[in-house]
Amino acid sequence: MGKKRKLKIAIQGIATSFHEVAALTYFAEPFEPIECLSFHALCESLKKEESDFAMMAIENSIAGSILPNYFLLQEHHFAIIGEVYLPIHMHLLALPGVKLNDIKNIESHPMAIRQCSDYLYRLKGIDIRESDDTAYSARKVAEKKLKDTAAIANEYAAKKFGLAILEKRIETHKKNFTRFLVLSRRANGHADANKASLCFEVANEVGSLAEALMTFKTHAINLTKIQSIPIIGKPSEYSIHIDVEWKRRKNYDEAVSQVLRQVRNLTILGEYKKGKIEYK
Amino acid sequence: MGKKRKLKIAIQGIATSFHEVAALTYFAEPFEPIECLSFHALCESLKKEESDFAMMAIENSIAGSILPNYFLLQEHHFAIIGEVYLPIHMHLLALPGVKLNDIKNIESHPMAIRQCSDYLYRLKGIDIRESDDTAYSARKVAEKKLKDTAAIANEYAAKKFGLAILEKRIETHKKNFTRFLVLSRRANGHADANKASLCFEVANEVGSLAEALMTFKTHAINLTKIQSIPIIGKPSEYSIHIDVEWKRRKNYDEAVSQVLRQVRNLTILGEYKKGKIEYK
Repeated sequence: MGKKRKLKIAIQGIATSFHEVAALTYFAEPFEPIECLSFHALCESLKKEESDFAMMAIENSIAGSILPNYFLLQEHHFAIIGEVYLPIHMHLLALPGVKLNDIKNIESHPMAIRQCSDYLYRLKGIDIRESDDTAYSARKVAEKKLKDTAAIANEYAAKKFGLAILEKRIETHKKNFTRFLVLSRRANGHADANKASLCFEVANEVGSLAEALMTFKTHAINLTKIQSIPIIGKPSEYSIHIDVEWKRRKNYDEAVSQVLRQVRNLTILGEYKKGKIEYK
Repeated sequence: MGKKRKLKIAIQGIATSFHEVAALTYFAEPFEPIECLSFHALCESLKKEESDFAMMAIENSIAGSILPNYFLLQEHHFAIIGEVYLPIHMHLLALPGVKLNDIKNIESHPMAIRQCSDYLYRLKGIDIRESDDTAYSARKVAEKKLKDTAAIANEYAAKKFGLAILEKRIETHKKNFTRFLVLSRRANGHADANKASLCFEVANEVGSLAEALMTFKTHAINLTKIQSIPIIGKPSEYSIHIDVEWKRRKNYDEAVSQVLRQVRNLTILGEYKKGKIEYK
């Protein structure tokens, strides 16, 4: 009796991290999470075929784009094959019985720290420490039985590591979400794709960008994101990253073939089915 | 004999921070730096008239935009009256005589940590800690005589606090710069303005944005930055932030008056003289 090999999914952080939750949201079948303690390591894991796919956070509605991840994407030529919008609820976790007054250090991933900045700003005399991962911080508090340290992490981590929720929902904006990309070594030609991520280069002369957007407009293609990224060392040029959505694939194909003639270095980072944003 | 009151400039961080260096670059006359340990505190200082102007980092060529600062700008209705592009060179500072092998902790501002990620990634078994400010971390190492801790900060901090440079230029990209905005409680109508920062809202339908950019194009206005920012709780709408430059003021005035009729909630964040980017 043949047993199907479990999928291996590279996640940033350890099990129970938001990356694992995003992977659980996307993949219907059970998978083995491959824990990576940096985005760099995450890309290496996918590149070396130690994992089949990778989940990569790319932007947050509060903290903005994770620009270095765009550089990693381009460097590795991975294809985006899907996306997940995950509502981010963050809690302050500590050992059961510990009170807020006992806490001298709070530890978490820098992105989580930034997303709880209003809450943290009001606390006095507490050391804020950066770690590689929200779940890692939670596990550390549990394993080392740290009575003076709290971790910012999700509910899933609290349950798994037996921590108590000292303060619930400490994220500044309650409708905060993080967008994760599903990466593969090669594009898979999703038949039901209705969204694409593209990038191209323009001089800081508004013409070519305005023309490219006009092309999308005349083909009834919607824009869901646009961002210019400076090209290091070339102050008068920049990369444009855009996400577009369509109702009719034919419109998109025609628009892209026209835009290709209006801009330089056009790259299709991926064509995929768009994710849903659901606030709780 | 009347003595002219010294200007008070709010800076993020303590004296010798990159914010102070940016202020020294912009203001020709001597000033008193008002030290603020968060961007929130920086805005409060300006709002309460404890300072005349404020310097605020807004984006870095590697780490990207500091999105929360855009929110602060809009919340406080400050005017941008100038900008500074500062080349960012970062060093690892420690007490004189301390060796890299002695270092157990490295401490700095999260933005500085991110900008040195390649260097830090190669180090093993060292705890990376987030602080409020690069200069503050340098001062702490010096004042507390910490032999196991290094700070990531600039040369100016090394000199002032008597620290040695353990590793020089550890920033990942050598042509890295940070852009700082000069903020005032009110616009000053710079006669020699040739750049503006604008924001407006669009639905995620490409039309109005494409039309606005076409308007700038037909008026010979250049675009130096474009970024969409999600509007929290409204997944199908977003804010667009753009920076534009012009050679003839008349063109800009005409373009803005036309764009005003093409988009919603147009705000002029500031009109000012553009800063120069000079790599060393």
